[in-house]
Amino acid sequence: MATISKDNKVVTLINVFTIEPENQQKLAELLIEATEKGMRHIQGFVSASIHRSFDGTKVVNYAQWRSLEDFEAMRQNPEARPHMDAAAALAAYTPILCEVIDSFSADD
Amino acid sequence: MATISKDNKVVTLINVFTIEPENQQKLAELLIEATEKGMRHIQGFVSASIHRSFDGTKVVNYAQWRSLEDFEAMRQNPEARPHMDAAAALAAYTPILCEVIDSFSADD
Repeated sequence: MATISKDNKVVTLINVFTIEPENQQKLAELLIEATEKGMRHIQGFVSASIHRSFDGTKVVNYAQWRSLEDFEAMRQNPEARPHMDAAAALAAYTPILCEVIDSFSADD
Repeated sequence: MATISKDNKVVTLINVFTIEPENQQKLAELLIEATEKGMRHIQGFVSASIHRSFDGTKVVNYAQWRSLEDFEAMRQNPEARPHMDAAAALAAYTPILCEVIDSFSADD
């Protein structure tokens, strides 16, 4: 589970992958495996949530890192490389590095 | 605050707005106001979290609705219309309707 709040001191990476529908499941499984075996063990990892679009054409990874420094260090980490390369070979992607500026829930 | 979990029975809308950097703040404020005054009072609203990209070119709304039916009803709701039109006039957007298939956190 992950939480979204403007009070969380995290850096957010929203990575939108555009994919052929016949490869959507394969890409989703690859990202789940990459997170389980690689990313979650890297310093500064906070969370990663994998989403599948209903129309079959997108997979979105909503990921949180403790700081920009941790995120940049992960990008240089050889342990992260094979998974990122495999995902990149399968799909076009748009990584959006961002911060939460406000969050509302029905319970507020 | 919002939570992301594959056990949450929600529909997720990740809406990626692409914007001129000089209009990023204006769009973010518009989406925050739309959520506060409009969206959060509509039946089936669960959460909405507004993100600003560090490079200035994106705003992302990560929103959760109780069901696909509630989401579709919101889209037909005249109360939601003026805000959606104002955002659409300001920026190109890519709405991704999706579901969480897995979520990992450092605490798991």
